[in-house]
Amino acid sequence: MGMVGGGIDAFIGAVHRKAAALDQEIELVCGAFSSDPEKSKKTGEALYLQSDRVYSSWEEMITKEGQLPAGERMDFISIVTPNHLHFGPAKMALEHGFHVIADKPMCFSLSEAIELKQLVGKTGLLFGLTHTYSGYPMIKEARQWVKEGKLGAIRKIYVEYPQGWLSENIEAEGQKQAAWRTDPSRSGKSGCMGDIGTHAAHLAEYVAGANINKICADLNKVVDGRALDDDGAVFLRFGNGASGVLIATQVAAGEENNLKLRIYGEKGGLEWNHTDPNSLQVKWVDKPKDILRAGVNNAYLSEAARMNARLPSGHPEGYLEAFANIYRNFAFDIRAKMDSKTIDYNIYDYPGVDDGVMGMKFIDKVVESSEKGNQWVEI
Amino acid sequence: MGMVGGGIDAFIGAVHRKAAALDQEIELVCGAFSSDPEKSKKTGEALYLQSDRVYSSWEEMITKEGQLPAGERMDFISIVTPNHLHFGPAKMALEHGFHVIADKPMCFSLSEAIELKQLVGKTGLLFGLTHTYSGYPMIKEARQWVKEGKLGAIRKIYVEYPQGWLSENIEAEGQKQAAWRTDPSRSGKSGCMGDIGTHAAHLAEYVAGANINKICADLNKVVDGRALDDDGAVFLRFGNGASGVLIATQVAAGEENNLKLRIYGEKGGLEWNHTDPNSLQVKWVDKPKDILRAGVNNAYLSEAARMNARLPSGHPEGYLEAFANIYRNFAFDIRAKMDSKTIDYNIYDYPGVDDGVMGMKFIDKVVESSEKGNQWVEI
Amino acid sequence: MGMVGGGIDAFIGAVHRKAAALDQEIELVCGAFSSDPEKSKKTGEALYLQSDRVYSSWEEMITKEGQLPAGERMDFISIVTPNHLHFGPAKMALEHGFHVIADKPMCFSLSEAIELKQLVGKTGLLFGLTHTYSGYPMIKEARQWVKEGKLGAIRKIYVEYPQGWLSENIEAEGQKQAAWRTDPSRSGKSGCMGDIGTHAAHLAEYVAGANINKICADLNKVVDGRALDDDGAVFLRFGNGASGVLIATQVAAGEENNLKLRIYGEKGGLEWNHTDPNSLQVKWVDKPKDILRAGVNNAYLSEAARMNARLPSGHPEGYLEAFANIYRNFAFDIRAKMDSKTIDYNIYDYPGVDDGVMGMKFIDKVVESSEKGNQWVEI
Amino acid sequence: MGMVGGGIDAFIGAVHRKAAALDQEIELVCGAFSSDPEKSKKTGEALYLQSDRVYSSWEEMITKEGQLPAGERMDFISIVTPNHLHFGPAKMALEHGFHVIADKPMCFSLSEAIELKQLVGKTGLLFGLTHTYSGYPMIKEARQWVKEGKLGAIRKIYVEYPQGWLSENIEAEGQKQAAWRTDPSRSGKSGCMGDIGTHAAHLAEYVAGANINKICADLNKVVDGRALDDDGAVFLRFGNGASGVLIATQVAAGEENNLKLRIYGEKGGLEWNHTDPNSLQVKWVDKPKDILRAGVNNAYLSEAARMNARLPSGHPEGYLEAFANIYRNFAFDIRAKMDSKTIDYNIYDYPGVDDGVMGMKFIDKVVESSEKGNQWVEI
Repeated sequence: MGMVGGGIDAFIGAVHRKAAALDQEIELVCGAFSSDPEKSKKTGEALYLQSDRVYSSWEEMITKEGQLPAGERMDFISIVTPNHLHFGPAKMALEHGFHVIADKPMCFSLSEAIELKQLVGKTGLLFGLTHTYSGYPMIKEARQWVKEGKLGAIRKIYVEYPQGWLSENIEAEGQKQAAWRTDPSRSGKSGCMGDIGTHAAHLAEYVAGANINKICADLNKVVDGRALDDDGAVFLRFGNGASGVLIATQVAAGEENNLKLRIYGEKGGLEWNHTDPNSLQVKWVDKPKDILRAGVNNAYLSEAARMNARLPSGHPEGYLEAFANIYRNFAFDIRAKMDSKTIDYNIYDYPGVDDGVMGMKFIDKVVESSEKGNQWVEI
Repeated sequence: MGMVGGGIDAFIGAVHRKAAALDQEIELVCGAFSSDPEKSKKTGEALYLQSDRVYSSWEEMITKEGQLPAGERMDFISIVTPNHLHFGPAKMALEHGFHVIADKPMCFSLSEAIELKQLVGKTGLLFGLTHTYSGYPMIKEARQWVKEGKLGAIRKIYVEYPQGWLSENIEAEGQKQAAWRTDPSRSGKSGCMGDIGTHAAHLAEYVAGANINKICADLNKVVDGRALDDDGAVFLRFGNGASGVLIATQVAAGEENNLKLRIYGEKGGLEWNHTDPNSLQVKWVDKPKDILRAGVNNAYLSEAARMNARLPSGHPEGYLEAFANIYRNFAFDIRAKMDSKTIDYNIYDYPGVDDGVMGMKFIDKVVESSEKGNQWVEI
Repeated sequence: MGMVGGGIDAFIGAVHRKAAALDQEIELVCGAFSSDPEKSKKTGEALYLQSDRVYSSWEEMITKEGQLPAGERMDFISIVTPNHLHFGPAKMALEHGFHVIADKPMCFSLSEAIELKQLVGKTGLLFGLTHTYSGYPMIKEARQWVKEGKLGAIRKIYVEYPQGWLSENIEAEGQKQAAWRTDPSRSGKSGCMGDIGTHAAHLAEYVAGANINKICADLNKVVDGRALDDDGAVFLRFGNGASGVLIATQVAAGEENNLKLRIYGEKGGLEWNHTDPNSLQVKWVDKPKDILRAGVNNAYLSEAARMNARLPSGHPEGYLEAFANIYRNFAFDIRAKMDSKTIDYNIYDYPGVDDGVMGMKFIDKVVESSEKGNQWVEI
Repeated sequence: MGMVGGGIDAFIGAVHRKAAALDQEIELVCGAFSSDPEKSKKTGEALYLQSDRVYSSWEEMITKEGQLPAGERMDFISIVTPNHLHFGPAKMALEHGFHVIADKPMCFSLSEAIELKQLVGKTGLLFGLTHTYSGYPMIKEARQWVKEGKLGAIRKIYVEYPQGWLSENIEAEGQKQAAWRTDPSRSGKSGCMGDIGTHAAHLAEYVAGANINKICADLNKVVDGRALDDDGAVFLRFGNGASGVLIATQVAAGEENNLKLRIYGEKGGLEWNHTDPNSLQVKWVDKPKDILRAGVNNAYLSEAARMNARLPSGHPEGYLEAFANIYRNFAFDIRAKMDSKTIDYNIYDYPGVDDGVMGMKFIDKVVESSEKGNQWVEI
């Protein structure tokens, strides 16, 4: 793996590296960690990399790695830069024959996303997108429940993602994470909805096994001086006939990262909370509530849930493990491809280029709906 | 107290009676418990009432009680019938000099509500409305927090009320509670929003200390054959500048009665859940979360919270106690009025005729917004 | 009902009165509320009692009420005084033909308890004891599960009752509740174990359907200057072969009233927490955990659980409702006795004189074990 | 790092490897993964190791690695075998100049532990012991609270570790984990207390900052045919004057791995649950409860807590991360030693040889107390 972005003081870069390292299926061999060559070099040293494989730019990395012998060069790149810097390295990597895994949202604009999708189709290379939450074992369990029809036809889907870290204008005080996320030139046309609304939308679609096909959005700029939405809510319609509500906000003062999903069918409902990610609640009209628990030992779970856990139930796995599942499954897919085999996507799945395009459409459409005065628009 | 409705097999009548009895400030002395005189009689017997004060109709009750000497006749009536039968007895009672407490929503239509409000104004009599949830001590605590500005200016308000008991068409099987609530001729122009949406809206307004002044609603009839909404969501704007979302549904299969309120200001947020009603969570941007607990002994609580609790913290109080607070405070107000005194409404408050009118407006406007294709309408 | 004790400023007296009033099956008609006649009188006024039935002493009350005609006099007395004042009124009431309900522990000493038991046997009168926690619907449900063998043979029983209110020497500052509980001349030979240890022991025995027959106790006087234990733990052996641990403490600073019971059999376990009293957790070796919920509507519950609830699930009932179940069931039993009928004790049970004797033995034996240096003693 | 034990189908070996890999400070370079050379070889292949550094025995590994040049050979060994196979490789590694990290309990017997301690002292090499739970950030936070006296003098310590996986005689069915743990020749003189009781005791001592110095134990063999305890409880006395209770059981059917610690001082108490490891509850006599949350961003936390977290609060970290903290801190200590520097043990601490000796004493003494009929014995 070669990394683009993720200098020493970045947040998500280190997350990607730990996630990739955890299962010992992936080795970080090179990187262009910063647009500042000095910083890239220092990051490489801190990571014990060979100095000749720490590059000054992603262009240099892709070019030079491409010149190394097949067994020696990186197999794929991991892109962990702000949104406006996804498209360039992704495109060039694909054109040079490297698989790509990128942070979300996939790109800066929908048109970029569509171009990447075409390129992936053309090259036959693999593309992964780190919609972390779909990597949790109990989310995979939930997906199986819906898929197998255990709840009957799905009627209602509620997904919410409240955060509070942008309650104050911390971008004005130089907080880096806040600075690029609130800046239209780096983040794109949406702030909150692009950053976390897309996670919520992806999670709902992933578990529901159906796409959002119509939305009516109410976006707000709550903190004075913001150019992009920092808060919003969306009425939803899904392809499977369900309706729902998506809430995403970054100004719910005191909230951490409390993603929550509830799905109700004719017979019962499911609830999953990021605050207790190893549990899945199953609610019934006329029976006691069941609490399903993640764990390799719980034979009552689907294979998808068990194969994306590492430990027996009662040994909590968390965010890095969910993230690691995406990396590990992506690595399995690359290895299978090298061996002309296939993996079972029902178990070892990971979000890809279609999810990325869908996310960019979601951003486009919520902004459009909100600008039109909260009208319904189709996706 | 004289009761209208609440025959032996009704649900809410017994709740009102227990709530009125708990604190031993109110005595049930008479009733017209059913439109069926035989059933009314049997109910009166089961309640150990004098047989000559069990009436065949509310008209008879109001007339005859009005003819009893002052110290002997009932002081007020309690109306616990379906929505379409609130207005008649309320009006007649007020006209005969009796105070009135009624279940919510206040009436069948907004015009009825406005007429009652005028009558209350004219007669100077007291009117109580059993929006139960505002009776919980920790809700009163939350209200004080907002009022005193401890969270800074309020920005976001989320209130949700998911139930699952109408997931199936149980009205077709003769379930009485479901039958009248899904029937436009008895329930009014809204089902779910009238039944529980009004509770949620009242709770949000009560704690926020501000009215909803603009809404955009998405109502659904999820179960086949329903004439009224059994599900919905509403974007909200409040008089204090806050925005929010209200969710109410009766088809979230497996949910019980999980009312939840979250309010966020510039500095922090509050969360209250009906599943754990004796706790109030206070969340801060940069401090640990606080869990405040109901209890007469907790000196850190407001007087409003302590005076509406009966027990030390750790001794759970519930729905009947919250309900009883409304009755007890209403009784305190009647007694004060008799003695030409006043009570401190900041502590011994109860919902009244203004809340009732507001609730009827809410019903009107969510239906209007939804029928117009989810347009914003002002309240 | 006539009450002994429970003056205006007492805690538990008001609890008994509310519990007795809630279900409208019991009327408070007289009382001797204090050894101070003036205080007794004022209490009677505040409770709207007839002045001639507010007595100066319990002796007077029992004598005078006994002289009233049968349909007019009180049917039973409720004793809510400190421990050393239970025996006298209970004995005299029984001797005058009145049923008795008393707060726990039953008496000041085991010998008193045995004498009362004999008197109850001789008179054929009813005796109730307010071990509140056995009144919770989900505790009754738990008892049924064990009784029906759903968990297999019971192996382990853990019960704990941590409180923190005696963390400081508040009796020295004149706190009344603390003063008598820490005083050997009013409380008896144990403090913490008598006050709350007996509740924990009763709860364990009630649900297990088996008595504790051997104990090894470790009692402590944690706060300086205390004459009685304010903390302790006990190894347990039960008649059904199970072993366990009981923890009771009043110096766990910051704890409220967190009674908790866990029972494990060969196949699974049960857990009940007073902080969430309307839920019962059922845990299995190889299945998801079930959460059973109190509610008249939950057909999956035993009749014992449903008939001791008043509301549909999701409408929390609490401490007063559990207390009220004991009073209501006691009233049902009196009424049945009057009508020469019987009630189904499997559903409408309440703790009685045998539980009281068992509690006094428990106190005796834990003190004996602790004084002997934590040796095992048989009960 | 070179590993002893941890063949493909072992549980804890993979845990150690993931924990060591997560932070990219440690590289697995060699191993003797099984006493079966074929299995060792296969394990090495699955881990992408160089084939010449996959050894047939730990003796071979230590010998051959010792012959490699300094910068090339392994720096330390990780011992992940059953208890009876800790001492041999640990001793030999220390004698050959390698640091050692081992799973707990440290050895098979107390005498082995004492010998290792002496050897560590003599060689000046580093010794780590994976008492996982002390690696959790909120446990480190709790330790700081006690250390800084924020709760006042400590009075009560309750620690419990209920599991249910040995509720059935699964060792008879060939379950490997169960087989060695219930076998005196591999596990040592205690089963449950050695396996998880030592974890609980270590956690209590770690947070209390004081050793257990007197115990009275009640051990049981609940499942028929077991040669070692599978259940027990212990009364505790600590060096700081506190008393407490330790519960450890492996037959609480339906429990997972629910380690829980509660510590109470004069002013307040702390509670930590393994089911919610990123929260620490702080309870006060007269203030709301505080919920402290793990996270690098929470400035209110101690440096010890923040430096042992990787993510902002709301991104759950779990068991592997706690485990990884022990490995990472051990690696930091080795690196510091190489550079003749020191690390701040207040922040980057890890359990060591003294904890190991203490654990072996605990096992010895609980068995002694239980065999003597639950007498108090000093440690």
